[in-house]
Formats: sequence, structure tokens, C-alpha cells
Amino acid sequence: MDIVFFNGEFLPKEKVSVSPDDRGFLFADGVYEVVRWYSGFFFDMEGHHSRLKRSLSELRIKWNDVESFPDIASELIRLNSLVEKPALVYFQVTRGAAPRTHTFPSPPVNPTTYGFAKTFIPESAGKENGISVMLKNDIRWARCDIKSIALLPNTMCFEEATSKGHGECIFIRNGYITEGSHSNIFFVTGGILRTHPESEHILSGITRKNVIKAASACGIKVEERAVHEDELKEVTEAFITNTSAEITPVTAFGGTPAGNGKPGPLTKLIHNKFREIVLSYAGKNS
Amino acid sequence: MDIVFFNGEFLPKEKVSVSPDDRGFLFADGVYEVVRWYSGFFFDMEGHHSRLKRSLSELRIKWNDVESFPDIASELIRLNSLVEKPALVYFQVTRGAAPRTHTFPSPPVNPTTYGFAKTFIPESAGKENGISVMLKNDIRWARCDIKSIALLPNTMCFEEATSKGHGECIFIRNGYITEGSHSNIFFVTGGILRTHPESEHILSGITRKNVIKAASACGIKVEERAVHEDELKEVTEAFITNTSAEITPVTAFGGTPAGNGKPGPLTKLIHNKFREIVLSYAGKNS
Repeated sequence: MDIVFFNGEFLPKEKVSVSPDDRGFLFADGVYEVVRWYSGFFFDMEGHHSRLKRSLSELRIKWNDVESFPDIASELIRLNSLVEKPALVYFQVTRGAAPRTHTFPSPPVNPTTYGFAKTFIPESAGKENGISVMLKNDIRWARCDIKSIALLPNTMCFEEATSKGHGECIFIRNGYITEGSHSNIFFVTGGILRTHPESEHILSGITRKNVIKAASACGIKVEERAVHEDELKEVTEAFITNTSAEITPVTAFGGTPAGNGKPGPLTKLIHNKFREIVLSYAGKNS
Repeated sequence: MDIVFFNGEFLPKEKVSVSPDDRGFLFADGVYEVVRWYSGFFFDMEGHHSRLKRSLSELRIKWNDVESFPDIASELIRLNSLVEKPALVYFQVTRGAAPRTHTFPSPPVNPTTYGFAKTFIPESAGKENGISVMLKNDIRWARCDIKSIALLPNTMCFEEATSKGHGECIFIRNGYITEGSHSNIFFVTGGILRTHPESEHILSGITRKNVIKAASACGIKVEERAVHEDELKEVTEAFITNTSAEITPVTAFGGTPAGNGKPGPLTKLIHNKFREIVLSYAGKNS
């Protein structure tokens, strides 16, 4: 039986009842995080925790117990007997339940908090040889830096990509590659690792930050400078990053091979270093 | 006690339990409609019904009972003793509840349907002398033609507008006025009534369509051609339209008066004709 967290309590999932007045259900008025558990420890819980606080602050949602987030996540792992398994913790905070009106409830109501843990097979499994990605104009809003639950465009575009045989949808805004529907993207051009700079057009990925660290530690030059779609033909390697899959090589953009169409050597080098960074968290957030 | 509609049943609101797996709660993966009841009949139910079908179709959500929407709405009015009162019916359809994953559930699950009715005081009440609107860059996604529940940007911007003393937030995209956070907007320049053409950047408002009809019936020339922000100084009248408020005069853009800063004569003329159109629905959808 799955034990989840809901509004301060740990309880069987079947007992959770979300109000139809919840602003998460009516307005997508909420934020979320996904943290990966490596069979014994969380990876960069501090990074996820501080991003959650930022997302809440950007939406002016006040969750008084936000400091307890790491403890709740650990408890979800323990209560679901996942301590020794690979797992993900999902956690969502909405502005709460109130009669439907566009303005925020005044005075504010208690936010709704919901979290669950589940074991998983990394999305990258079987994708070691790389994936093809679909390229599409970025139809999302202009505040992609907020990890909000307003994910309709992301799901629509990812669904379109998978239905066409691609492993991810990569967005282009004003000619520049921003990120994927649920990943950041990196490119190697002229031996330099490049990715879109932090801005309101991308989510500041926790894996993204650690990949930049890993690449630098490998002596690879990193530039946070967006790649224009016209530059794709000069790309020798590409990969996407996210919490659940770590690093997945990209070997084709639409029908066109990326570089020589195989996972590149820098991608492998960075992934190995990234795994060292992951292991450095062992014992820190267990 | 409020009686609502939930997944095929009419039941007390307290008995509704939305699953935390609902894609409306996790992904904003759903659409909605709001229809106005004029103490005895619905205004343009056919327009709302056909827009609901279009929204569902754009998201590829299949609700087998979509034809029953007008009957459900009437029943909500009746069960809540609202027949002789001014009321609104809210109705939402999400893709349904399924384990969280960006791709659409395959095979599809049953959509979640939720509707309620409530009496209301039109938002325009007390605003006969007009409102000031805040102007802001359109941060929303590029498919505003779909009436989705991914309304986070709309609520954020409307909250910002009201907190600054404005009655609505009006969006500007690439220099052109698109629409409001929950309204369309019309302008009079050189005696011509103008509004943004139908496109992926605005919702095709039911009131908007009927206002165009009303203005034409008054012999006013109407152009569906966007107004550039630089043209605002030439505007002699402006108003916003939506289901709950019908027509609300706009008398200032930010700190600058619109025209002479008073509701204009064409606005009043159009509103009177619009009310005639409303009355023509009496007996049609009761």
C-alpha cells in the first residue's frame, strides 16, 4: 500500500481527497519538485530544497513547513520500504482550496501539500546509444524558471514527440534552443560545452548545474550561451539532463544526425564525473 | 447545500474527492467553460458547447458524454434552486487520473468531469463608470485559443493588476494588444471598432463574437485587426468583454486616460444592442 504525504499527514494514498476547489485543480496554481534517491541517499537535496523555496516565493505561496521538506522526503522513502531501492520523491505545493476566483484568496488559505515516493527504472535505461529529439517552437509561457504545475504545454509537446518516435521535445525560442519538455540540453561545438544561460526561458535544472560542475572538473570549457538552430550542423555532441535520467545522449535532431550520430566521448567523460559527484552525496541526506 | 456534478453524478460538493493522480491536479491537463444563466435561460449555450468540444479536441481528450453538457448545466441550475436568479455554471474536463507521467495515459482513462453552479453579482457591477487596466507583456503560452485550466499566468497577472488598483491586466505581445487575463478587449479608433483577430494568441470569446454582431447591427464598422501599443493615444473608447461581466468600459491604460477618460457613446450603444441579443436567447436554453 502506497503511503503518501498530504497536508501534514502520512496516509494511504486511497485516503487522499483533493478538494475540487483546490487551486492546483482549477488554476495550475502551484509548484513541484522531483528528487532522486540513490538506494541510500538523496542527490543534491539542498539544490531541490532551495529551488522549491524560490518557486514558492515567486508565486507568493507561503508554506510554513517548507523547512521540513527533506525530512518529509526521507520519511516517504522509509514508509514505502524504498531505502535500498532507486526511487523518486515527487512533491507538490498548491495555493490551497478556496472558492474559484482569479485573485489569490485573501486572507490566504493553507496551501495544499502532496508528496509520494516510488521506485523507478531510470528513463535513460536502454538509451545509452542515444535518442532522437523533435525540435519545436517553444509554445510555453515566459516564466519557465518557475517549476510550476502548469505543465500542459510540456505534456502536449512530449506526447507529440514520443508519438513520432522521438525521445524528447526540444524547444526553440526566437531561433535559439532553450531546453526540453522536461530536461535541459547541452551541446558540444568546437570542443566547448554549451547550454542556454539561466533566464526566464529555462528551468534551472539541478542536474544541469551539477553537469556544469562535472564538465569543469574534467577540464572542459563550459559556456552558458544559447545555441542557435543554425549552429546545430556544427554540433559534434549533444545530451539532455534531468533528475530521473541524469544524462542521455542525443544522436539526432529530427531526422538529422547530431555529429556522427553516436554518443560522444565528452558526453561519456562528463557522465562518469557526474556519477562521482552523485556518490559524494552518499551519507549526506540519508 | 451545493449540489455539483462529478464524473456522471450529481452530489453534494462535500462528497467530491478528486484523486491526487488527476492530471488536472498534476499537469493542468484539462479545459473548462463558464456559461451565464440570465434568471431563466443560458446565453449562447451553443457557442459555449461548441467551444468546449473544440478545446477537448485540441487536447485530444475524449469525453463520451460531451453532448449532455447543456443538460448537465440546466440540471445544476435546477438542483441548486437558481432558476430565477442570475447564475454562472462552471464546467471542467480533465484527461483523468493516472500514474504521473508526461505522456498521455495509454490506453486512455476516463476523463474527470466537474461542474458547479452559483449565483453571482456581475463583475461589472459598480464599474459602469469604467475601469483602469494594467498593461503587461503577454507572458502566457502560445495556445491561448484553447480554454485550458493552465491559468497560473492569468491569475498571477490579474492578482498583480488588482493589487495595483486596476480592474484587469491587458496583455501586449510583440507590441500588439492581445486580450485580458480573463476578457477580450475592444477599441474605438477613428470611429471604427477594433479587436485582435482570432488566432492562437487570444481566446475566441463568446461575448466577443456577440459584441461584434451587436456592433455591426448598430451600423458600426468592425475590424478584427490588432491595436499596436503606439496607437493607444488615438483610442477614443475602449471596453473589455467576458461572460460574467458582459461589457465593462475601460477609461484608463495604466495612468493614462483612454480617450476622454469616460465611458464612450459607442460602448453604451453596443452594450444596449448586446442586451437585446441576450434577451433573444430567452426560452431557447431554459
